[in-house]
Amino acid sequence: MDLEQELMQRLENDEAEMIKIRRHLHEHPELSFQEKETAKYIKDYYKNLDCTVSDCGDGYGILVDIDSGQPGPKLALRADFDALAIQEDNDLPFKSQNPGVMHACGHDGHTAYTMVLAKNLIALRSQLKGSIRIIHQPAEEVSPGGAKSMVADGALDGVNHVVGIHVMSSMPTGAIGYHYGESQTGRSDFTVKFIGKGGHASMPHLSNDAIVAGSYFVTTLQTVVSRRLDPFDTGSVTIGSFDGAGSFNAIKESVTLKGDVRVMKESTRKKIREQIKQIVHGIEVTFGVTAKLDYDDNYPVLYNDPDFSQYVVKVLKDAKIPEVNQVTDFGPQDPSEDFAYFAQKKPSIFFYVGCMTDDGANHPHHSPDFMMNEKCLLIAAKAAGTVTLDYLLK
Amino acid sequence: MDLEQELMQRLENDEAEMIKIRRHLHEHPELSFQEKETAKYIKDYYKNLDCTVSDCGDGYGILVDIDSGQPGPKLALRADFDALAIQEDNDLPFKSQNPGVMHACGHDGHTAYTMVLAKNLIALRSQLKGSIRIIHQPAEEVSPGGAKSMVADGALDGVNHVVGIHVMSSMPTGAIGYHYGESQTGRSDFTVKFIGKGGHASMPHLSNDAIVAGSYFVTTLQTVVSRRLDPFDTGSVTIGSFDGAGSFNAIKESVTLKGDVRVMKESTRKKIREQIKQIVHGIEVTFGVTAKLDYDDNYPVLYNDPDFSQYVVKVLKDAKIPEVNQVTDFGPQDPSEDFAYFAQKKPSIFFYVGCMTDDGANHPHHSPDFMMNEKCLLIAAKAAGTVTLDYLLK
Amino acid sequence: MDLEQELMQRLENDEAEMIKIRRHLHEHPELSFQEKETAKYIKDYYKNLDCTVSDCGDGYGILVDIDSGQPGPKLALRADFDALAIQEDNDLPFKSQNPGVMHACGHDGHTAYTMVLAKNLIALRSQLKGSIRIIHQPAEEVSPGGAKSMVADGALDGVNHVVGIHVMSSMPTGAIGYHYGESQTGRSDFTVKFIGKGGHASMPHLSNDAIVAGSYFVTTLQTVVSRRLDPFDTGSVTIGSFDGAGSFNAIKESVTLKGDVRVMKESTRKKIREQIKQIVHGIEVTFGVTAKLDYDDNYPVLYNDPDFSQYVVKVLKDAKIPEVNQVTDFGPQDPSEDFAYFAQKKPSIFFYVGCMTDDGANHPHHSPDFMMNEKCLLIAAKAAGTVTLDYLLK
Amino acid sequence: MDLEQELMQRLENDEAEMIKIRRHLHEHPELSFQEKETAKYIKDYYKNLDCTVSDCGDGYGILVDIDSGQPGPKLALRADFDALAIQEDNDLPFKSQNPGVMHACGHDGHTAYTMVLAKNLIALRSQLKGSIRIIHQPAEEVSPGGAKSMVADGALDGVNHVVGIHVMSSMPTGAIGYHYGESQTGRSDFTVKFIGKGGHASMPHLSNDAIVAGSYFVTTLQTVVSRRLDPFDTGSVTIGSFDGAGSFNAIKESVTLKGDVRVMKESTRKKIREQIKQIVHGIEVTFGVTAKLDYDDNYPVLYNDPDFSQYVVKVLKDAKIPEVNQVTDFGPQDPSEDFAYFAQKKPSIFFYVGCMTDDGANHPHHSPDFMMNEKCLLIAAKAAGTVTLDYLLK
Repeated sequence: MDLEQELMQRLENDEAEMIKIRRHLHEHPELSFQEKETAKYIKDYYKNLDCTVSDCGDGYGILVDIDSGQPGPKLALRADFDALAIQEDNDLPFKSQNPGVMHACGHDGHTAYTMVLAKNLIALRSQLKGSIRIIHQPAEEVSPGGAKSMVADGALDGVNHVVGIHVMSSMPTGAIGYHYGESQTGRSDFTVKFIGKGGHASMPHLSNDAIVAGSYFVTTLQTVVSRRLDPFDTGSVTIGSFDGAGSFNAIKESVTLKGDVRVMKESTRKKIREQIKQIVHGIEVTFGVTAKLDYDDNYPVLYNDPDFSQYVVKVLKDAKIPEVNQVTDFGPQDPSEDFAYFAQKKPSIFFYVGCMTDDGANHPHHSPDFMMNEKCLLIAAKAAGTVTLDYLLK
Repeated sequence: MDLEQELMQRLENDEAEMIKIRRHLHEHPELSFQEKETAKYIKDYYKNLDCTVSDCGDGYGILVDIDSGQPGPKLALRADFDALAIQEDNDLPFKSQNPGVMHACGHDGHTAYTMVLAKNLIALRSQLKGSIRIIHQPAEEVSPGGAKSMVADGALDGVNHVVGIHVMSSMPTGAIGYHYGESQTGRSDFTVKFIGKGGHASMPHLSNDAIVAGSYFVTTLQTVVSRRLDPFDTGSVTIGSFDGAGSFNAIKESVTLKGDVRVMKESTRKKIREQIKQIVHGIEVTFGVTAKLDYDDNYPVLYNDPDFSQYVVKVLKDAKIPEVNQVTDFGPQDPSEDFAYFAQKKPSIFFYVGCMTDDGANHPHHSPDFMMNEKCLLIAAKAAGTVTLDYLLK
Repeated sequence: MDLEQELMQRLENDEAEMIKIRRHLHEHPELSFQEKETAKYIKDYYKNLDCTVSDCGDGYGILVDIDSGQPGPKLALRADFDALAIQEDNDLPFKSQNPGVMHACGHDGHTAYTMVLAKNLIALRSQLKGSIRIIHQPAEEVSPGGAKSMVADGALDGVNHVVGIHVMSSMPTGAIGYHYGESQTGRSDFTVKFIGKGGHASMPHLSNDAIVAGSYFVTTLQTVVSRRLDPFDTGSVTIGSFDGAGSFNAIKESVTLKGDVRVMKESTRKKIREQIKQIVHGIEVTFGVTAKLDYDDNYPVLYNDPDFSQYVVKVLKDAKIPEVNQVTDFGPQDPSEDFAYFAQKKPSIFFYVGCMTDDGANHPHHSPDFMMNEKCLLIAAKAAGTVTLDYLLK
Repeated sequence: MDLEQELMQRLENDEAEMIKIRRHLHEHPELSFQEKETAKYIKDYYKNLDCTVSDCGDGYGILVDIDSGQPGPKLALRADFDALAIQEDNDLPFKSQNPGVMHACGHDGHTAYTMVLAKNLIALRSQLKGSIRIIHQPAEEVSPGGAKSMVADGALDGVNHVVGIHVMSSMPTGAIGYHYGESQTGRSDFTVKFIGKGGHASMPHLSNDAIVAGSYFVTTLQTVVSRRLDPFDTGSVTIGSFDGAGSFNAIKESVTLKGDVRVMKESTRKKIREQIKQIVHGIEVTFGVTAKLDYDDNYPVLYNDPDFSQYVVKVLKDAKIPEVNQVTDFGPQDPSEDFAYFAQKKPSIFFYVGCMTDDGANHPHHSPDFMMNEKCLLIAAKAAGTVTLDYLLK
């Protein structure tokens, strides 16, 4: 039995453990930047295993280094472990016990399969070359994200390539999806407060209506995407929050709006930022209000290095993993992902493992009824394991 | 000494009592429809006086009937007694003791002078003809107002005319202001909820952005006043509340807006209502959202009967009250006033008594530093007293 | 027979002449500032009459001075004589013979009754005191109007008061209407050109869409009236021209908009002007376009001097002219009128003489089927004649 | 010398003829659907050549069939020959002699190289297999385009594949550009008239302002691209014409707008059309105006068949044409092209041949100073010729 067969066999034997870990994490979710118990749980798992565990970054980030003892490249495998501020609606034996917090994006699964895979790679490490770094990352969901400070703290030192996986409930279980090049949007966000002058609703001439200024801002903002971008470029601008609650019979002094920007190119990000600043200033001039704008460019566009990605896809296709029935280009994805910080520094791939339930029902990510087909855990472990072996032994 | 001289003298003697009552009320303000202790205080005052006291309306309304025993007309004097949800900022020995509640509009003064005037009219009643009804009205500040249900409950039964006074901090103390005909705006208000479809900010095509629909509603709403009204007519439409707070990275499913409408004619009220309904429906069609509109026409336009008002103004001018140095047309006023419900039923006048502090400082009504020159109390009592005597004896 | 009776009799005798003159003018209308033949016709009429005729102003203005030879005040009577760029739709024996030009506002009538009245006043002049100045004014319809330069050229030198009349097809013949104080709107107008950058419709990012900038300008402009004016003030802002015609598949480089502003107070005029300038600049900043704004404050608010007007109204009421059945306050009027330039300089009145046809049909001013009940000519002549006599003899 | 070498040699020898023909066409440009003389000129050229010439389609379309006499596939080569409504600004010996008409897009070149290539293919035809159809197409510039009716009239009967070339002044001469799949946008256009009610600018309440309705339509229209499309999809909506010219002092009764829509998917075209219809109806409801909408889906998305295109690109790269220094993916292009109608029916490729002048100056297509580096003619002829030979002999 060759090494790959051995690893696959070991993972199959440990499938129940993956599920157990995933359910434990699901039952005890923690919000981004507050994953204290989750981090402790992960570190405890590695306590008696032959590896080096270290803290990394501003939050609860953990690096697990597995060294073969032989010279060779270093591959990083990244798994995130934070949950969302959502009240779970599913009726499960392992339903979230933390009110208002839920693993509604599948990070419990990412962490579970990665821990078990790591355990087995540690067991086999003397037969490998080079080294493996497991990146257990907190706080993927909330800006500035956990990845950024881990990178700054050396998470990628000596690393040659990075692999990340996300389970995907809109893809059938058994499918693996990928995309080359720009693959998930970069994100910026902003907060703008327009300050006019309050007053009695019956006397508009003595006030300066901030709701009116804010509303014209929103309607004018539509021109950023509709008129300023190359139709072939990707960009979206959303005002997700218009905070102007007040009394019907008083003119509102100020309103605060929060916006979200998505792009697939840095040049688009720049153009949108410039346009929004220009429009904010235009609203100041037009309505005689004062604007306070905080604009933050954060998650980069997630870039899957074409060479490395083609290599990984070839390995996945050649591996003929029995549980995998397709490996296809899934196209670029609208959401942003802070794996992009790793991919910015090292040639990387971030790919998708289908986790649709067997009944094909719709359980969208970030919804209170998100549900994962737990068969995806073994698939993800095998996929990442296959790539790791091939990479270290090629 | 004639009767008028006697009443004036009595009022001068009782000025300190007016101030004392006003300060007591100021120290113990109660919100509209919750004026339980204030009502008790007022009724206690009349306990040993020779008059008929009865409850009236849905709230804490009180009628005090003073009968001369002689045939003749019945004049009603109205004084309101509710306070506002404002935290007092003034540093006074009799500062509001109820946190977040304040007599910031002067209703404490209205009630104080009226009580003392009533007491003296009771004392002199056998020398009069006809009768006087004192209307102590609660809840002027908050829709539907206290007047409406008092009218429905018979407050104006047998009444021939109604007189109301409002102190006015923007007018010098010593000035009396009036206006004939339409004198304060009528008011309508509405709440509209636009319901779209929530979603991830990066995927606008899968959502229906309620903030966008709400913002275009606000910009379109401006045309009601700018294009639909006769430029010679008075109307205002204000969105005082745009409740669309949310997360920057999620498209908002619904927003709720509250609006305020002021008019000087019922035909304008109707036109604005029709236009707003039309635009709300237009937004539904344009954006494919669902709208829920609650539209409430409430306070009527306050109409000062020209004949009765001219009579009252003539009496006030002829009286040559020493503390009064001018009686002038003050023009129509932007705010609404539920005295309008009385004026809708009986020929009435609602006029203004200056209460500016001696330093001329700005203490606007409905502000945390509203302040009344207490000299206005005697002036108001004399003005109302003079009119009452003339009316009953003419 | 007293003098007034004599004048009335004379006017009745000359009614046919008034009609004849009016029909001649109606048949030969001339556009504003081009009334060469009309002016010649008027001057010819006075050729053999005992009066002084002189040219006045930049256009075809004519002054006719009638001096009693006795000391006394000087009263000016003003009549305008220009026509409109409208193709007449009426089927009349004296239908306009000038294609596309029509006396559709009644200035033919104004001139006709004034000429005949003047002839009779000349005949009676030795029995009068003081003097009369007939102001035959061209170009009322088109900015800058004929009045302005006549005033500058001395038309009001020595004049004490001015009287003007407009026939009014919405008032029954026999009615006289008036209003004291501000009576017709003042007017400003502006032209604004927004210059962006043209380009191919498929490449908006390489262009700067002037139609988009112009459209947001129009929607933002609505806030001037809806949010900046006191609801008790009168103001309107209209974009009457949006010149942005082009090809569907090219992005428009520039658009030119023309706007109209009406007010009843100079303070409102100022506020609107400031707001429009502010919004134009705001559009420049918001969209990065260049704007060229020409803003012209022209016709003043027409102000009927209350004292003089009350005097004139009293004379009209006391005169009991048999053809007049009512003299009532007609309220302020939306349109502007360059008589306002005279009224700005001297105490004046501009009042209305009903000219509705006997069938009560709707023949609006400035429409191709405007029609005048010619009975109004005698009424106007008698009204102006009565006032003139009373004024000069009082 | 093999056949390919022979053809290349012949084309080199005929370069002067290509230039001569191109200059003749340039001097005598004709507008779309009016290319009578151009068509005659082309047909005359083929008169004594061994081929079959036939008219095709609603306009001046010409088919030239070249049959080898041997069985084999049929390849179509398409060249368009209409000019634009532009006044030429260049100072050339062969400057356009038709005022206001200019070959400003390079169709003169397309036709010139194709005619000379066809002549040489006719000369060599007995050495080929299968057949060649030259499609001389009129009216590419103006909807509905010349291609549509030629397809309907059988232009592609028996044709297996189609090749089209466009010269491109933004690409260096010597470069060949291509793109696989969707390569140029599809286009729809629409005209919408909003009918309100005209009136005097001072009386907005009696009118219904069509400029206001049209302007809110334009601002609302921005949401189609900004909120309704998947950010990864391509779409643009432009209002190229806002015809609302009028007088400043009259409220405009109606305005007519023309719009342009570009897409890269039929699903996007459908979504935009539905949204525009919805918004037009929404404006009707909101403003109480009547809308008349004419909506026309015309040019399809130009789709370069990936298999055939990859074959053609490989042939072009392998050919090592000396004048060609690069063959690269040029990306998708914003403008639309009615070659799309051919590509909709048969697997096709439409590729680009650089024609930048040697000084690198900017001479954009559709501009009055468009200029072509005539070296592109030989390159285009060689490129098309190489592909034709390979295709027929493979």
